[in-house]
Amino acid sequence: MKYLGERIREANEIALERMLSVEPVLVDVDTALNVIPDMTPNTILHAGPPIEWKRMCDPMKRAVRGALIFEGLAGSEDEAEKLLRTNKLKLSPNHHHNAVGPMTGIISPSMPVIVTSDLKFGRTAFSTLNEGGGKVLWFGTFGRETLDRLSWMRDVFAPVVKKVIAKTGGISVWNILAQGIQMGDECHNRHAASTNLFLKSIIEPLFSIDLSRDVALQVYRFIAGNSHFFLNITMTACKLALDAARDIQDSTTLTAMSRNGTDFGIRVSGLGDSWFIAPSPYLLDALYNPGYSPDDGAPDIGDSSIIETMGLGGFAIAAAPAMASFAGGSFQEAVSITKQMGLITLAKNSKFAIPVLDFAGTPTGIDVRKVVETGILPSINSAVVHKSSGTGQIGAGIVKAPYECFTKALMAFGERYNLAA
Amino acid sequence: MKYLGERIREANEIALERMLSVEPVLVDVDTALNVIPDMTPNTILHAGPPIEWKRMCDPMKRAVRGALIFEGLAGSEDEAEKLLRTNKLKLSPNHHHNAVGPMTGIISPSMPVIVTSDLKFGRTAFSTLNEGGGKVLWFGTFGRETLDRLSWMRDVFAPVVKKVIAKTGGISVWNILAQGIQMGDECHNRHAASTNLFLKSIIEPLFSIDLSRDVALQVYRFIAGNSHFFLNITMTACKLALDAARDIQDSTTLTAMSRNGTDFGIRVSGLGDSWFIAPSPYLLDALYNPGYSPDDGAPDIGDSSIIETMGLGGFAIAAAPAMASFAGGSFQEAVSITKQMGLITLAKNSKFAIPVLDFAGTPTGIDVRKVVETGILPSINSAVVHKSSGTGQIGAGIVKAPYECFTKALMAFGERYNLAA
Repeated sequence: MKYLGERIREANEIALERMLSVEPVLVDVDTALNVIPDMTPNTILHAGPPIEWKRMCDPMKRAVRGALIFEGLAGSEDEAEKLLRTNKLKLSPNHHHNAVGPMTGIISPSMPVIVTSDLKFGRTAFSTLNEGGGKVLWFGTFGRETLDRLSWMRDVFAPVVKKVIAKTGGISVWNILAQGIQMGDECHNRHAASTNLFLKSIIEPLFSIDLSRDVALQVYRFIAGNSHFFLNITMTACKLALDAARDIQDSTTLTAMSRNGTDFGIRVSGLGDSWFIAPSPYLLDALYNPGYSPDDGAPDIGDSSIIETMGLGGFAIAAAPAMASFAGGSFQEAVSITKQMGLITLAKNSKFAIPVLDFAGTPTGIDVRKVVETGILPSINSAVVHKSSGTGQIGAGIVKAPYECFTKALMAFGERYNLAA
Repeated sequence: MKYLGERIREANEIALERMLSVEPVLVDVDTALNVIPDMTPNTILHAGPPIEWKRMCDPMKRAVRGALIFEGLAGSEDEAEKLLRTNKLKLSPNHHHNAVGPMTGIISPSMPVIVTSDLKFGRTAFSTLNEGGGKVLWFGTFGRETLDRLSWMRDVFAPVVKKVIAKTGGISVWNILAQGIQMGDECHNRHAASTNLFLKSIIEPLFSIDLSRDVALQVYRFIAGNSHFFLNITMTACKLALDAARDIQDSTTLTAMSRNGTDFGIRVSGLGDSWFIAPSPYLLDALYNPGYSPDDGAPDIGDSSIIETMGLGGFAIAAAPAMASFAGGSFQEAVSITKQMGLITLAKNSKFAIPVLDFAGTPTGIDVRKVVETGILPSINSAVVHKSSGTGQIGAGIVKAPYECFTKALMAFGERYNLAA
């Protein structure tokens, strides 16, 4: 009979091998209701671990109300509010539907979604198409322009992108991110190069398909004008990698970190679908827009920390020192963060080679035990939204996952695997 | 009366201020004969300092013969060779015609050329449009496909690019390079990000102008398929910066480094148009294609070292550690090269901020005195072509400018400014 330590080591090797062997390919764009499992006309998906309406933070509430208006389920924010106090709607976490969404992460039934498939294990993951800047649901802000943009995305943009992706035969997400890492993207808060590379991979089909030139140019402009466009695609790929590592007996490998703006939750491979929850932290190490301070921000929010769970974003910050300087840090601080993340992870992912570390791979595969033992917390590159005014984004910076999630998970692991016996 | 040291310091400040204040904008594409000063139907321009036909290296000779066939001045390489032994042609350095060209750098009268203007001082500089890979004149290799490509570039590609650039209203070269430096380009051997950024700035006009979609796609593919496309544009901008610093009384600032594959030459601001010459070095610190070694390479060649004269390329190698790894070097070696270049230059160019050096600017403004005093030689990122077989490129790596050029220039400076007196 094997000792638990040995079993954990073997289980984590399997988890890691699965994470690293996925081949995520962007294959389609479709309507959420058509493709997302257990999506219904009355379901609204949100970022983070499960949360009921009244506990949601203000920006998430605004985005949910906006989505209900977009769906035609409510005629105004007041109507939406009333509807939300009935039992007629289902609010459910993206993560329970093979989906992920940045910031508020709201997905409603008629929204178009990215469809990314893992060629290795056959899973599929979903996310919205990134809305860009301005009054946008993902940042918890809503207005007439939000509805107009969402309608255009549904009626014009998504059908074109669907055809374009079909014509490409599928776009390898890791391929783009591997180049992005060479070009100063850490693949969370900075996707400038990756978005350019994505554009490069769709220009030919976009301008070759049977389509008016005006529409093709509109589609091009929308993507080219948003350096975060590739973010949601990255998130689906990371979701696929982590889903491949789920439900492995004895494994202490993290399979999700996610925030709903109220709670921060993590999941662990050997502990199935359970969430281990703590209050979501505020962004103290951040650059705030003029006139704003940490006092104005909502707690950290979004499924985008699936990127750090996969060893990119904050874990790859040495590749994008500008992201450390957001938080007042130097290049050496960026290197130091990436190296620290090496102390709580299982391996280096050679697919993502960091030039300034002599092309060492990104630290990947967070081990709950290592986080608890060392006290080194996963470092997440994130953005801040206003806690109450509906202003949307007010800053960006670095946040640490709460220690409490990890101690809770490790205690549950002890109980589950009978460590006391 | 001021001491010479003080006069030199003041003169170098003026040179530097001029270099740093140019605003190079890509404004047009036109035919060499139409726009390059002193171009004639019988003139062939080449890289490097002046050189007569018989002293040219084999790759440059091949490119010159190819250009004569392209011009219809010769029907075969033999005929070209015979013509070159007469007095009917003028071979002249690009640098004497406000032009620059990478590697062999051949410009013949009917070739289309980039036209880049300096909005600050009103100068204009020229270069060919980059041919890309395969059998190409710039790498000193020639065949049927070379002629076909050059003809297509003249008849199809250039007229489209001309219209596209006109529609953009001009493209700021520094703007693209400043972003490129943030994305892992050192802006000589690596232009992957800059070329993507250039593409991004022309997609809308390219697909908006009155043009068949097939031709627009051909033009797009040609640029998108060549990550060095922006190289020649960078060179024209650097040429403008250095030309702005020319002919300043008392200045010891370098205004050109250039190689013709036989000789390496430098020019100094306070010494007018004189070239200070030494044998061009071989690339020892380079990665050679399988089957090739330094023994197979021609001496270093091309006007592209105008990029290092401006403080990019080898001087900015810390921004592109992959370029140091070509020569077997680590990230620390790349940083060390950039820091060493700081010891022979006058200032840091804040336009080009290197992320891994906490956004310090690139070391710029080479002072001949500092090179002679320290023995630290300008480090140039370069490529190698085969010395005799017509194979074209066989490697890429790092080369140092010859010390002899600098001692000769400093002695001439002493004579010119009567240091002995």
